[in-house]
Amino acid sequence: MTTKYTIISGTNRKGANSYLLGSIYRNLLAAKNIEADLIDLEKLPPDFLFTALYDNANKDEVFNSYQSLINNSDKFIFIIPEYNGSFPGVLKAFIDGLDYPSSFKHKKAALVGHSAGTQGSALALSHLTDIFNYLGMHVYAMKPRLLHIEKHLNKEGELSQNYLDLLREQVDGFVRF
Amino acid sequence: MTTKYTIISGTNRKGANSYLLGSIYRNLLAAKNIEADLIDLEKLPPDFLFTALYDNANKDEVFNSYQSLINNSDKFIFIIPEYNGSFPGVLKAFIDGLDYPSSFKHKKAALVGHSAGTQGSALALSHLTDIFNYLGMHVYAMKPRLLHIEKHLNKEGELSQNYLDLLREQVDGFVRF
Amino acid sequence: MTTKYTIISGTNRKGANSYLLGSIYRNLLAAKNIEADLIDLEKLPPDFLFTALYDNANKDEVFNSYQSLINNSDKFIFIIPEYNGSFPGVLKAFIDGLDYPSSFKHKKAALVGHSAGTQGSALALSHLTDIFNYLGMHVYAMKPRLLHIEKHLNKEGELSQNYLDLLREQVDGFVRF
Amino acid sequence: MTTKYTIISGTNRKGANSYLLGSIYRNLLAAKNIEADLIDLEKLPPDFLFTALYDNANKDEVFNSYQSLINNSDKFIFIIPEYNGSFPGVLKAFIDGLDYPSSFKHKKAALVGHSAGTQGSALALSHLTDIFNYLGMHVYAMKPRLLHIEKHLNKEGELSQNYLDLLREQVDGFVRF
Repeated sequence: MTTKYTIISGTNRKGANSYLLGSIYRNLLAAKNIEADLIDLEKLPPDFLFTALYDNANKDEVFNSYQSLINNSDKFIFIIPEYNGSFPGVLKAFIDGLDYPSSFKHKKAALVGHSAGTQGSALALSHLTDIFNYLGMHVYAMKPRLLHIEKHLNKEGELSQNYLDLLREQVDGFVRF
Repeated sequence: MTTKYTIISGTNRKGANSYLLGSIYRNLLAAKNIEADLIDLEKLPPDFLFTALYDNANKDEVFNSYQSLINNSDKFIFIIPEYNGSFPGVLKAFIDGLDYPSSFKHKKAALVGHSAGTQGSALALSHLTDIFNYLGMHVYAMKPRLLHIEKHLNKEGELSQNYLDLLREQVDGFVRF
Repeated sequence: MTTKYTIISGTNRKGANSYLLGSIYRNLLAAKNIEADLIDLEKLPPDFLFTALYDNANKDEVFNSYQSLINNSDKFIFIIPEYNGSFPGVLKAFIDGLDYPSSFKHKKAALVGHSAGTQGSALALSHLTDIFNYLGMHVYAMKPRLLHIEKHLNKEGELSQNYLDLLREQVDGFVRF
Repeated sequence: MTTKYTIISGTNRKGANSYLLGSIYRNLLAAKNIEADLIDLEKLPPDFLFTALYDNANKDEVFNSYQSLINNSDKFIFIIPEYNGSFPGVLKAFIDGLDYPSSFKHKKAALVGHSAGTQGSALALSHLTDIFNYLGMHVYAMKPRLLHIEKHLNKEGELSQNYLDLLREQVDGFVRF
């Protein structure tokens, strides 16, 4: 049975670097003959925080389609921008709306952080690792942190060779993880 | 000038224990002649994640009223349920929508965690402390973690004596912090 | 080639529960025909913090024997008591004395936390996960936290059925990780 | 009554940058007419991990002199190098040997991180904040992280203007904290 990969761009900001990086990551996987879906949180129902959680769990059809995609996936790549010293709230809200524990238990995740400037996204990736481990999902140890992303990624979606190499190193290890 | 207090119930789940605990906390402050507003994230615009962030910052009037409340406050109490090994995504989404760094810089926060069972909310409070410190807000060291909240809080909003004492100890220290 | 397992009792306290739990864990592995060494930090040279680190790296023969054991191991089990809201300093000091990055890179770890009372060892295991991930070692997502260990483990080294089951579940998954 | 300050250089490495930075910090305090002791962990008894902890608590006279210094202090500045993705084990071992909870409860701490390269010390400072909050000590929110310290500090103990300004900003706030 084929291992199913899904990439998640961790923000709902329009035209986000996370989505560009997700597309690049998909190409890196394609170069190894691995297909991957790419989830863009910007496409979530705008009011999913109220229509798809708690008493309304599983009632929103668009949200349900994302739930199905998650259910059918074995390995995940999360592209994470740093917002306010951690990862975006929208990503945790998305996770809060997914079924527990079936969505992620016994599955595997690779994390990529990026940020403007030198602040790094160390805490964002640490917080997310805590959450995924709590949910029973193993996290690949190497987590590239792409500092100064504005100097390494242009609007045509071209990434610097240094950062491409880092992502390729992660891909090589993650497919065997 | 009077120090202004605001309590934030950290979830948008209807009828949440966090809101009940927030009301209890408000009474504890009132007993010391301190007035406090109580923000219920359940009252946020359902689509604020898309209408009040990024390019739409400051465009949503209801969200702006919360921004004003935050701007005028000096000390915050956050009531935090544990969701998926951390705090609710809606709370981080709310923070992501607020002005940076004026909303919280040089201000002070007290955190209260609660959870069903023994899992505790240690990681939730740790993650939130990281975020607030990043934003320049000091966090009161003592952070009560109300385990087995279902055994200590009833639907009439009555909290066990043990837990009331813990909250009172925090209040006593926080007003002098 | 056989995968080599090593268990590390994460404290140098004499007669520590960590060592007892390490012995129990070794028996659980033995029941699956897996041999494992058990490192007791209490056996480290008392002054290793000064004789085996920095300019003195690799100069202490006893410490070097532990380094060899680590070098030859592929999978590690760490038994972690909670000290002062995290894991014992002696364990980090031990790690600080080991070669970087060869000691742990591309290897795998399982973590077991234990504590008196209900405080739990969530933060200890989170901090340690950060460190191991930084060192390039993958951490098994399920990390049993043995609360109230004093009620579940007696001085003859008998562990309660509940906790034995938790450890067995981890062993079953970790050997396939 | 005068507030008593103590600076702790967080490693026992000889000739460490942490000690140099501690001396600089002491001068910044002196410029505000504040005296501060400076603890160098390199001066600890080499075997304190075995002679001053657990059953041997309070039995080592040299260690006891540090305990007295801590007992008499109200505010602490910790200078923290990044070792293996966190702070040095020797610092946690030192904390593990101190009386609980009297050593730090209701006291205040300022943290300064430094590291070679861009890795930063975000996780080191986060872990330490968790520990101090657990011990009941408040942590000043602004925690300077001095990246590329090798480019900013020379062996004569001269620090770049940028980094001096960062430390001065922390000092100004911390004395009023």
